[in-house]
Amino acid sequence: MPIPILRSDRNSKKELDRFLSGAKEDLSSATAKILPILEAVRTRGDKALIEYTEKFDGIQLHSVSLDPHSIQTDLNQNVKEAFLRAKSNIEAFHEAQRRESWSRTIDGNRLGVKYTPIPSLSVYAPGGKALYPSSVLMGVIPAKIAGVKNIQLITPPQKEGLPDILVWLCQILEVNRIVTVGGAQGIAAGAYGTESIPKSEFIVGPGNAYVAAAKSYLAGQGIIGIDSPAGPSEVCIIADSSANPKWIACDMLSQAEHGEDSSAILLTTEEDFAKEVSEELEKAFVARPKRLEMKQNSIYKNSAILVFPSIEDCIWFSNELAPEHLEIQTKDNESVFSKIEHAGSVFIGPYSPVAMGDYISGTNHILPTARGSRIYSSLGVDTFLKRVTFQEVTKESLQTLYPFVKLMSELEGLDEEHGTSVKVRTEESL
Amino acid sequence: MPIPILRSDRNSKKELDRFLSGAKEDLSSATAKILPILEAVRTRGDKALIEYTEKFDGIQLHSVSLDPHSIQTDLNQNVKEAFLRAKSNIEAFHEAQRRESWSRTIDGNRLGVKYTPIPSLSVYAPGGKALYPSSVLMGVIPAKIAGVKNIQLITPPQKEGLPDILVWLCQILEVNRIVTVGGAQGIAAGAYGTESIPKSEFIVGPGNAYVAAAKSYLAGQGIIGIDSPAGPSEVCIIADSSANPKWIACDMLSQAEHGEDSSAILLTTEEDFAKEVSEELEKAFVARPKRLEMKQNSIYKNSAILVFPSIEDCIWFSNELAPEHLEIQTKDNESVFSKIEHAGSVFIGPYSPVAMGDYISGTNHILPTARGSRIYSSLGVDTFLKRVTFQEVTKESLQTLYPFVKLMSELEGLDEEHGTSVKVRTEESL
Repeated sequence: MPIPILRSDRNSKKELDRFLSGAKEDLSSATAKILPILEAVRTRGDKALIEYTEKFDGIQLHSVSLDPHSIQTDLNQNVKEAFLRAKSNIEAFHEAQRRESWSRTIDGNRLGVKYTPIPSLSVYAPGGKALYPSSVLMGVIPAKIAGVKNIQLITPPQKEGLPDILVWLCQILEVNRIVTVGGAQGIAAGAYGTESIPKSEFIVGPGNAYVAAAKSYLAGQGIIGIDSPAGPSEVCIIADSSANPKWIACDMLSQAEHGEDSSAILLTTEEDFAKEVSEELEKAFVARPKRLEMKQNSIYKNSAILVFPSIEDCIWFSNELAPEHLEIQTKDNESVFSKIEHAGSVFIGPYSPVAMGDYISGTNHILPTARGSRIYSSLGVDTFLKRVTFQEVTKESLQTLYPFVKLMSELEGLDEEHGTSVKVRTEESL
Repeated sequence: MPIPILRSDRNSKKELDRFLSGAKEDLSSATAKILPILEAVRTRGDKALIEYTEKFDGIQLHSVSLDPHSIQTDLNQNVKEAFLRAKSNIEAFHEAQRRESWSRTIDGNRLGVKYTPIPSLSVYAPGGKALYPSSVLMGVIPAKIAGVKNIQLITPPQKEGLPDILVWLCQILEVNRIVTVGGAQGIAAGAYGTESIPKSEFIVGPGNAYVAAAKSYLAGQGIIGIDSPAGPSEVCIIADSSANPKWIACDMLSQAEHGEDSSAILLTTEEDFAKEVSEELEKAFVARPKRLEMKQNSIYKNSAILVFPSIEDCIWFSNELAPEHLEIQTKDNESVFSKIEHAGSVFIGPYSPVAMGDYISGTNHILPTARGSRIYSSLGVDTFLKRVTFQEVTKESLQTLYPFVKLMSELEGLDEEHGTSVKVRTEESL
């Protein structure tokens, strides 16, 4: 049972719609379960956190909040060097995203934008098998560069103690505290605050369905801001026979490795090349059998190779799909990339597998999924900055513009007070 | 019954919390009512739109979508000039917000950000008494400058035909079509599309509770992106006795004119000045009795004058409040403004009443309310742009960085495929 190879064109609506459903995870049953947890944490604070942690994690907490610098860590020097190299690249890429406040004169008045950081942030890091320390770099660094002053990590406690890598990252990133409470109760602690945990007004980072449901519910209530909801990981690859089919197969499998819901979609114009990639996938299943069933489910059920009549059609479909990750490995990558409108992060050329961006190139790996990149961006410095607009109007300009304000406010039925607030300044001196 | 004048300081928690509740409109009953409407429009398209419009608006629609250029308008030349002046200033301010795509070399690789516009936008404009043509400028202009190609206006039909001003604005702003359906059914038409209305992936603009509930529900489902929910209008004013108390009173009343839920909060250090403003409010109620009860309810019930011990305390409270509009009228406006972190739009100096920004200075008047500016921005070009990040990794850099990727992916249990996708490129040539 090889991966489906489908001949497609812009009219194969039924066939393509399957990939365009942009299905979001249904969080309604998780939401029903977390509501009492949120309420308990909101009203009973630390006590509720300690009870839920005993119930769900089987761990008796002495404290729900730790200073990272109070914890000894013992990490291999090579691991440290790897994360420091990643940190340095992620910092360089996000430093380039800094914003300068500006002002200019428009119609006689000084107008401008002042960029200011959000006040506080929690970054959630899942525990157990889904330990992704790289996501801590991706969540914290852009916020630090934006100037967010209060940053805490929320992560489930572990029987054997917190992983050294998480603690060490919090130390070098100067994270203010680690909240050792996982799941919906951890998110509630971040959103509402407790006796020993300050509330934060923004929460980012991946987690299970309960974490996602809690974030989404609290954001809907206007209590916190969140990153875009994280769905299954996806890659779209636009490639032709100038690419190495074995490498393409590896890249597809590195998405499949995330879970059977993940998808890898290859868009090409060459059927022979499609077949070569399909064969390489089969060889890889033999050569690297770890998590085989999961990878096969992802590839056979949620992935596909689509053969389009032209590269323009491939680009068209990629823009419809708005993939989380897009790889371009063709004879003319720049031409293809110039036509890309919607994608989370783009990986150009043969030496840019997604794994490079996942870990070390410097781009952010917290990206919109499920077609979200048609309207949303990856996590970046802008995620944590706001534009405060401002204006200083001169007396002359106010006098010149008053007749216009008068007409406009009359039309909107707001002339009595809006109009007067301008008029009074034309008539009197300060 | 004058406006409450309250002596406050950073410890008057109970008193101040009242202004910090950031209460959002409860949309749950409106949401229950709109769900069947959304479903009907999704499944039955134009037919449902025509039925609901007959039912709710008492109007028999021949067509649910109009080309603005197909409609004759007759508008006073002076009104046109006023809106053209506003348009020109709003365009100038938002042109300054354009983003240039960029790339730079980081650790040997080309990394960058490409800015691309969202694919499509609907701007909702309420009808009837709440006709705010200025909001059409504010919604459409930033999207046009961002490069959004497909922009439609959604607005309720009127028995006497669409207002000339709305149609004319759509003509000069080159809006692609006018959808003449209001309420939740109009929002559903924009979000799902129908036989004669293309779907749009983003919807902005103010509306009643049903419009707000529909936008919020559809955004929660991941079907559309929206601007931040619009609550009652608010102004916070930091002023001292260098300001004209009559002008301050006018500015407070121009918020009150929006509705009795609106609030105007004056922060000052001088009790005498507070009393002068209070007296000016009373005089204004006599002098300008239009909408008196509404204005008085807003001022007496939802507004206040808070007298703090120092200007630093005033600034502290303003940042806690994160007001939609902030006016600064003090002896040293620049010093105060330099400490402002959270506000939607700031109006600096004696000649910058909020009405100038509402209509004509050039800043956007679609702003976060209910403390939203602690984490969100006003509408701007960035609202309609996404950052597509990209990287092109060199063979040399991939070889140098592979050992780091190997260690990091091992730590995350993703070395088999993530690690291999990099390793294979170090071993073979293309």
